[in-house]
Amino acid sequence: MGMTGTIRIIGIDPGLRRTGWGIIETLGNSLKFVASGTVTSDGDLDLASRLCQLHDGLAEVVHAYQPDEAAVEQTFVNKDAVATLKLGQARGVVMLVPARAGLPVAEYAPNAVKKSVIGVGHGEKQQIHMMLKILMPKAEFKGNDAADALAIAICHAHNRGGQRMRAALAG
Amino acid sequence: MGMTGTIRIIGIDPGLRRTGWGIIETLGNSLKFVASGTVTSDGDLDLASRLCQLHDGLAEVVHAYQPDEAAVEQTFVNKDAVATLKLGQARGVVMLVPARAGLPVAEYAPNAVKKSVIGVGHGEKQQIHMMLKILMPKAEFKGNDAADALAIAICHAHNRGGQRMRAALAG
Repeated sequence: MGMTGTIRIIGIDPGLRRTGWGIIETLGNSLKFVASGTVTSDGDLDLASRLCQLHDGLAEVVHAYQPDEAAVEQTFVNKDAVATLKLGQARGVVMLVPARAGLPVAEYAPNAVKKSVIGVGHGEKQQIHMMLKILMPKAEFKGNDAADALAIAICHAHNRGGQRMRAALAG
Repeated sequence: MGMTGTIRIIGIDPGLRRTGWGIIETLGNSLKFVASGTVTSDGDLDLASRLCQLHDGLAEVVHAYQPDEAAVEQTFVNKDAVATLKLGQARGVVMLVPARAGLPVAEYAPNAVKKSVIGVGHGEKQQIHMMLKILMPKAEFKGNDAADALAIAICHAHNRGGQRMRAALAG
């Protein structure tokens, strides 16, 4: 698909318990909300079964909405190694799903995502929710995970041109 | 498959660059080597593509050898958060593959694996290689990753009865 056509983007905010997803379309500078939601895993099940739930739920979303490109938030590596490992396991599965479907998968740092939506690299969840409604008045999202996923998709819409340009120059 | 029949086990030692795998058969107290190897990912590619390589390579092994049960080493969570995250991402994909194929996936701590093979919870790689050859004279493996994977499979062969018993009592 050319750089000038409509591009459908899935943004994903990975988490073992809850993975948020948000789908938008971008054409030039315009943004259009398509759908958003959350895939959850059952904390009572073993890890392998939970990873299957995330995989299957997200694969269903990709199959239903057929996005062209994917963007995932870079994980904030913190001092809690157990939490980092859990998130890493979920993130591995979450990146695998669009990659196996043939989509390019971009990664963005959390502050880059915030900057795309609220203009600065730090801010409250409330600000992100408000700006999503301003950028895409028809946007619907329940909870922070779906909202964050939409913000990641918007970040990719703003940055994908530069990424493609750099890749073309490098290649 | 009943508790008394031959069980084919795949042991997996996850890693983003190299994931070792080893397949054995167990019948009562006997152990039989089936195959071992290493699935690698290309460090020059982006993370999503590397996770796809691990997925596809391991899925091919599972498809070719049709194991009944899987065992994966529990990750040693260390102070290097970036390394922990990388390993977590690989581990998520590595656990997903057998789980999606319908296999139960057990997890074992590194010292439990060593204890199964060399009798104590600590020891050198060299000792593991030597004991693998004693336990399964026909075992073939190239490198530490495949050897560790075989050790994980043996650990599961020794512990799966207890696990199933506990699951039955709990269920």
